[in-house]
Amino acid sequence: MKDQLIEKIMEEVMKKVDQPKAEAKAEECKPQQKFCGLTEFVGTAIGDTIGLVIANVDSQVHEAMGLDKKYRSIGILGARTGAGPHIFAADEAVKATNTEIIKIELPRDTKGGAGHGSLIIFGAEDVSDAKRAVEVALKELDRTFGDVYANDAGHLEFQYTARASYACNKAFNAPIGKAFGIIVGAPAAIGVLIADTAVKAANVDVIGYASPAGGTSFSNEVILFISGDSGAVRQAIIAAREVGVKLLGTMGEEPKPVTVPYI
Amino acid sequence: MKDQLIEKIMEEVMKKVDQPKAEAKAEECKPQQKFCGLTEFVGTAIGDTIGLVIANVDSQVHEAMGLDKKYRSIGILGARTGAGPHIFAADEAVKATNTEIIKIELPRDTKGGAGHGSLIIFGAEDVSDAKRAVEVALKELDRTFGDVYANDAGHLEFQYTARASYACNKAFNAPIGKAFGIIVGAPAAIGVLIADTAVKAANVDVIGYASPAGGTSFSNEVILFISGDSGAVRQAIIAAREVGVKLLGTMGEEPKPVTVPYI
Amino acid sequence: MKDQLIEKIMEEVMKKVDQPKAEAKAEECKPQQKFCGLTEFVGTAIGDTIGLVIANVDSQVHEAMGLDKKYRSIGILGARTGAGPHIFAADEAVKATNTEIIKIELPRDTKGGAGHGSLIIFGAEDVSDAKRAVEVALKELDRTFGDVYANDAGHLEFQYTARASYACNKAFNAPIGKAFGIIVGAPAAIGVLIADTAVKAANVDVIGYASPAGGTSFSNEVILFISGDSGAVRQAIIAAREVGVKLLGTMGEEPKPVTVPYI
Repeated sequence: MKDQLIEKIMEEVMKKVDQPKAEAKAEECKPQQKFCGLTEFVGTAIGDTIGLVIANVDSQVHEAMGLDKKYRSIGILGARTGAGPHIFAADEAVKATNTEIIKIELPRDTKGGAGHGSLIIFGAEDVSDAKRAVEVALKELDRTFGDVYANDAGHLEFQYTARASYACNKAFNAPIGKAFGIIVGAPAAIGVLIADTAVKAANVDVIGYASPAGGTSFSNEVILFISGDSGAVRQAIIAAREVGVKLLGTMGEEPKPVTVPYI
Repeated sequence: MKDQLIEKIMEEVMKKVDQPKAEAKAEECKPQQKFCGLTEFVGTAIGDTIGLVIANVDSQVHEAMGLDKKYRSIGILGARTGAGPHIFAADEAVKATNTEIIKIELPRDTKGGAGHGSLIIFGAEDVSDAKRAVEVALKELDRTFGDVYANDAGHLEFQYTARASYACNKAFNAPIGKAFGIIVGAPAAIGVLIADTAVKAANVDVIGYASPAGGTSFSNEVILFISGDSGAVRQAIIAAREVGVKLLGTMGEEPKPVTVPYI
Repeated sequence: MKDQLIEKIMEEVMKKVDQPKAEAKAEECKPQQKFCGLTEFVGTAIGDTIGLVIANVDSQVHEAMGLDKKYRSIGILGARTGAGPHIFAADEAVKATNTEIIKIELPRDTKGGAGHGSLIIFGAEDVSDAKRAVEVALKELDRTFGDVYANDAGHLEFQYTARASYACNKAFNAPIGKAFGIIVGAPAAIGVLIADTAVKAANVDVIGYASPAGGTSFSNEVILFISGDSGAVRQAIIAAREVGVKLLGTMGEEPKPVTVPYI
């Protein structure tokens, strides 16, 4: 009986002790969606992302921000974690709405991780367009986080679009209307290797290369930008992804996609 | 009896299990004040801040640092977390002592957070003046951390002085002798919105605007610098604070002030 | 008997509750060495470091990276945590192999800490040379992390070589063939003070000085580079280390060396 008692107590105790952890984990996975009653608030999403709008930006702030006078209404998409997912999401948003990308800024962030956060500003003549763009982008994030892989040692990111639009053009110099993708490895050493893997795997054009000392905000990433035939861009990315996951896995746990892979 | 026994055991266990957490929390809140017997050591404060003095800087180091030859004695205030609180604290210190601000540098830090740390150097002809400036600044930090609000997703910071002095002038271009304030939001998206809120709420002058791509060290902040009539500056800040706390609250727990609000 | 029972249960429970912590600690200390079957993979080491080689870099990537055409084979050494340890390890690697340092980049990293990560590229005409250089560097890291001291508030780093080679020259402008050392303090305030301590303690030449606003990637460090007579460089470092450990200790726990001190 004593043994049974001990067993029963152990069970109870472990349940209680593990509970906060389980709750913390659930909290982490569930995108929080709280509301605050402000008309400027559009929503939140994965990656500590927030979406906001201003119907009519104050003229002093407008000037201090260096915005084009054409746009009084702006949509604001900002995140602690993620730049690629947000830029590709914004790319879909400009395709779907009557807005323009007027600013993309990349803080060094990811909350202690190796990459960037983001600040993206949409310009619109009408606040409802700006709001719609932010809504579309927030919704796209679930997809664009699909090929982000992470473990404690670093992360890998792959983005692909069959037809690049103005956000990818502004941020990465992507040729508009063509298939375009990015390959990100962190720590940067992995990024160098999978950039090489990608370009060897398919006949693609290298549009750009970013590394800690240039083209990033001193993040610990190497990023390759590629364009070309749709099948080739995908093939290059898939090859890089396969190698990247293996390499990052040698540094820690098996890297898992943040949401569901789409490439 | 068995149930009582289990209950009693559970109680004991939970007490023991929770103890390290409680201790960790207490440790976190209590500003550590250890001593080390070095005459150069002045003290420590909130935000992983340390205050030091050098009576007579070595000439090679003096030159490598690019200091003005006028000052052989320097006071050093440095922190992992916080730039605004330290600059406004240093502003009071230069008012109160016979010292000058000779350097303000802003690392990208906050220990995985979205903002800056700081390195501030006071110059003095006499080491006792340098020491006094550091002491005043360390003491002011309790107040200047009062309108810093934070949760896991980001932070907000508001600083106000009725009469800007040389530290605010050097760091932010604040007009000396006039009321001056700063409004900080992180992630940067929130900073954009509350900058707009502030300037719409009162008749103030925008002195400057900093964002991840300019004026910050790639931090995930937007910062607005405002000057003007004392009441107007306070009113602008209070309006921004109200909106900021609501917005940051949609991304996580309710943001709480680090110490006690003073604005 | 009831008391004995309670005691026994408590013991069992605490064992079980503490187990994950003990495991986590062991995991942290043990350098992971996993393999992945790729010929490009060389190994991993302390500081979330990975070593890789590419036998024949793709020409498009080669050009995008801005590499010297002379080298088709590259060795890649990258880390989340540590720049000094990696550069001094690479310095030994170029001495020992037929390779050249072609790139050193310093991301702002250390996983939420105050310093840098690193990306170092070796060039070689033959892939076996590139691989050997990476192997030597990975092995040296155990030694070069010996005088890195850290606690929750910051870190100190001291590196010394009796005879600087091409990595130290490229990264720090060290005179080749002479004794050379670096003194790093984070938060930067501590770095300022121990730089002064070092130069006062021995007759050394100041080769350079880096701080958050210049020469670092906005890290919260001050770094002094010194050269001169071998005994003097060591003496300067030892003096700085003694003071640095005391100062960092006032901000948290007693700073401990990451591996085993060698200076």
